[in-house]
Amino acid sequence: MQTQPLDAITVLDFGQVYNGPYCGFLLAQAGARVIKVESLQGETLRARGDKASSTFPFAVLNSNKHSITLNIKSAEGQGIVKRLARRVDVVLENFAPGTMDKYGIGADALRAENPQLIYASSTGYGNAPGPYRDYLGMDITLQAMAGVMSITGEDGGPPLKTAAAFADFIAGTHLYAGIVSALFARAKTGEGATVDISMQDCVVPTLATALGSYYVAGRQQPVRAGNRHPGQALSPYNVYTASDGYVAIICIREGHWRKLCAAMDLPVSSDDPRFATMAARADNMDATDALVNAWTRLHTRAEITEVLQQHDVICAPVNDLDDVVNDPHLAARGTVEKRLHPSLGEIAALHTPIRFRDIDPPELTDAPELGASTQAILAEFADIDPTEFSRLRDLGAI
Amino acid sequence: MQTQPLDAITVLDFGQVYNGPYCGFLLAQAGARVIKVESLQGETLRARGDKASSTFPFAVLNSNKHSITLNIKSAEGQGIVKRLARRVDVVLENFAPGTMDKYGIGADALRAENPQLIYASSTGYGNAPGPYRDYLGMDITLQAMAGVMSITGEDGGPPLKTAAAFADFIAGTHLYAGIVSALFARAKTGEGATVDISMQDCVVPTLATALGSYYVAGRQQPVRAGNRHPGQALSPYNVYTASDGYVAIICIREGHWRKLCAAMDLPVSSDDPRFATMAARADNMDATDALVNAWTRLHTRAEITEVLQQHDVICAPVNDLDDVVNDPHLAARGTVEKRLHPSLGEIAALHTPIRFRDIDPPELTDAPELGASTQAILAEFADIDPTEFSRLRDLGAI
Repeated sequence: MQTQPLDAITVLDFGQVYNGPYCGFLLAQAGARVIKVESLQGETLRARGDKASSTFPFAVLNSNKHSITLNIKSAEGQGIVKRLARRVDVVLENFAPGTMDKYGIGADALRAENPQLIYASSTGYGNAPGPYRDYLGMDITLQAMAGVMSITGEDGGPPLKTAAAFADFIAGTHLYAGIVSALFARAKTGEGATVDISMQDCVVPTLATALGSYYVAGRQQPVRAGNRHPGQALSPYNVYTASDGYVAIICIREGHWRKLCAAMDLPVSSDDPRFATMAARADNMDATDALVNAWTRLHTRAEITEVLQQHDVICAPVNDLDDVVNDPHLAARGTVEKRLHPSLGEIAALHTPIRFRDIDPPELTDAPELGASTQAILAEFADIDPTEFSRLRDLGAI
Repeated sequence: MQTQPLDAITVLDFGQVYNGPYCGFLLAQAGARVIKVESLQGETLRARGDKASSTFPFAVLNSNKHSITLNIKSAEGQGIVKRLARRVDVVLENFAPGTMDKYGIGADALRAENPQLIYASSTGYGNAPGPYRDYLGMDITLQAMAGVMSITGEDGGPPLKTAAAFADFIAGTHLYAGIVSALFARAKTGEGATVDISMQDCVVPTLATALGSYYVAGRQQPVRAGNRHPGQALSPYNVYTASDGYVAIICIREGHWRKLCAAMDLPVSSDDPRFATMAARADNMDATDALVNAWTRLHTRAEITEVLQQHDVICAPVNDLDDVVNDPHLAARGTVEKRLHPSLGEIAALHTPIRFRDIDPPELTDAPELGASTQAILAEFADIDPTEFSRLRDLGAI
C-alpha cells in the first residue's frame, strides 16, 4: 500500500453541506483518517436526503469517512468532544459563527484540552472581528456580497449568479490549505493553530480581471458582458454556435487569431481592415463574432475543438452535465469513477483534484451510514466501554 | 517577528497570469521565499502591462515576491534552472502542457538534480495520460468544458460564464494545497514529489447541486434557472429588487421563511395556502417572489441586509466592484489594504485568505520590477559571480 501525504493524521470533521465536507473529503483523499461527526439526525445535507437531490453530493463528498453521532447540545456530548480533541490532530467545522463556542467546544476550549490541536473553521465572513462576523452566509449570498453577481450576466440584464457553488468549494479548498500549512508548521514547532477562513476573502481574488477593468476605467463598474471579454478589449472571445450546441473560443494574442483563421481556412486577417488588429476586431466585435459563427455553425463541438486545439487555439465545447459525467478525460485521469448508488443507480463519484504522480488516491468507499462507527471510534479515541456507551445512548448524547 | 507556517521554504515560481501566480501569492503570504522567474520580456500578465487593465492583477498577485529573469529557451538559462533547483524546495509552473519538458527542465530533470524537490504544475487538464492532456485551457474554456456554463444563465437564454475567474483561482488554491501536502510528507520521508493539478478536476466538484438535480431528474439537464434554485425546489430563493439595487435572499428551511415573514411584518405564511409550505411556494414561485419584492423594493440593500441578518435569514446585498474594494469587513479583517499603485492611484491590495488567529500575514510589498533580484538570487542560489553574471547577460540568458 502506498503512503499517502497525510497518513497518520486524524481529523474530527463537523462539516455541513459543501464547504467543510469538501475540506474533509480532500483530507480523507490525502490519507487522513476522517471522523465525520453528525447530530443524531445527521448533518444538514444527509438530513435533506428525503429531497433526493441531496443524495448525490452527500455520497460524493463523504466517501472515505467514518460517521459518528454526537449531540453537541448535551453536556455529555460536549464532554466527549473534549475527550476526542485530546487524541486527534485536527478539528474542522463550518457551522454558523459562534456555534461551537456557544456549546463550550470552540477553538479556545479544545486547544486548552490539546495544545497541539489544529482547530479550523470556515464561515461566510470569518471569525476575526468585523461588522459581518456574525452574518449567515451561503454560496449564493457570498456571490452577491463579494461582487461576482455584479459582473455576471448579459449587458442590460440583471446581475446573475453562477450555479456552480464555487464560493463553497473555493473556501473548502482554502480550509484544507490552512490545515495542512498548520500541520507542516506543527511538525517543526509542536504547536497547534487556529485556522480562520472567510468565504468572502476566498471569493474576492477571483474578481481579478473585472477589477483590472474597473481601475483602468477610472473606478467604473464594467458592463455585464455575457460571454465576451469583461473589458471588451479582446475578440474573438465568446461562446459560438456549433451544429450541435456551443463552443467557447478565445483569442488572447494576435497569433491566436492567425491560427484561428488558418483553422477556418479564411485569409481574412490581412484582407479586411475590420479584422486586421485586436483593437480593430474589438471595435468590430459583432462582425468578428459573425465571421467565427459562420464557420462554427457548420461543425460539431467535437470537430471544432479537435481542429482548433491542433492549431493551438484556446477553445472548448460547452459541455452539459451528461458530457461531464461521461467525460473520457476525467475517466482516464481517474477523477470520475462510476459507482453504484443505492437509490440513484450508477453515479459519477469523484477522486481528489490534489494529485501526485507516484501516489494514487485511496480507493473510494461508500459514504458511511449515519453513526456507523460511533461505538468503535468512541472506544478507540475516548476509552468509552460498552457500559458507558449504553448509558450515553440512553441519555441521547450519542 | 512572527514565524510564518512556511518560514524557511524557498520556491521558484514560474507562474503565468492567475493560476500559478495565485499559488505563489499564497506561498509568499504563508512566509515562503518566492522567487518569481520571468522571461526577459516579463511574464504574460506583466507583458500585457501596456494594456493597463493587467497592472492591477499583476500588482496584487505578485506582492512579496522577488523577480529574476531567465531565458529558459537558452542552454545557459536551462543550466541555471537546474542549479537553482538543487537549492530550493519547490518549483511551480502553469505553462502550456509539456513546456518545461521541451526545454529539458521538467519534473524528471529537476527531481534528478534534487530528489527532495517538490515539482508542482497546473494545466487545463493535468499531466497524467488522457485525451485532453495536451489541450490548451484558460478560465473561460474550463468553465465551458467542465459544465459550468451549461447551468449558468437565464431560462431560455444561452449558456453563460461567470466573469469571476474561479477556474484559475480554485486550481491555484489546489496547487498550493498539493505543494504543502507534499512538504508535510517530505518532512517525514525526506522525499520530494510531483504535484499534478488539472483545472478541470478542480471545477467539476462545484457542480454538486446541479448534478444532484441531474440525477434525481433521471439524468436530465436542469434548465438554466437564473438566480433561482437550480432544482426550482426552494422559494424564496432569488435576487430581489431593493430601492438602490438588488439583494440575494434564500430560504433553505421552513424556519427561514417564517423569520423572513416576521422581518417583513407579513403573517402570510399561515394565511395563504400558496405560501403555506416550501413545496407550495415553489409551485407559486412567481407569486412568492412578488411578495418578497413588494417589501424589498421599499428599502435599501443595507436596510434589508441588516434587518434580515438580525432575523437569521440568509441574505446579502448584490455589491458592485466599488462596494467590494471599499467593503468595511474586508478592511477590518485586513484582507483588503489600500495601497498606492504607480499608475492607478490607490488600489485595493489583498492579503491571503489563509488566515491564522495568532499570526498576521506578512506586510505587503509592491510587485517587484522585472528582474530586480536576478543578480542577488543567482549569486545566493547558484554561486554566480559578477563576471559570470555579465557573461550570461551578454548571452541573453538572463
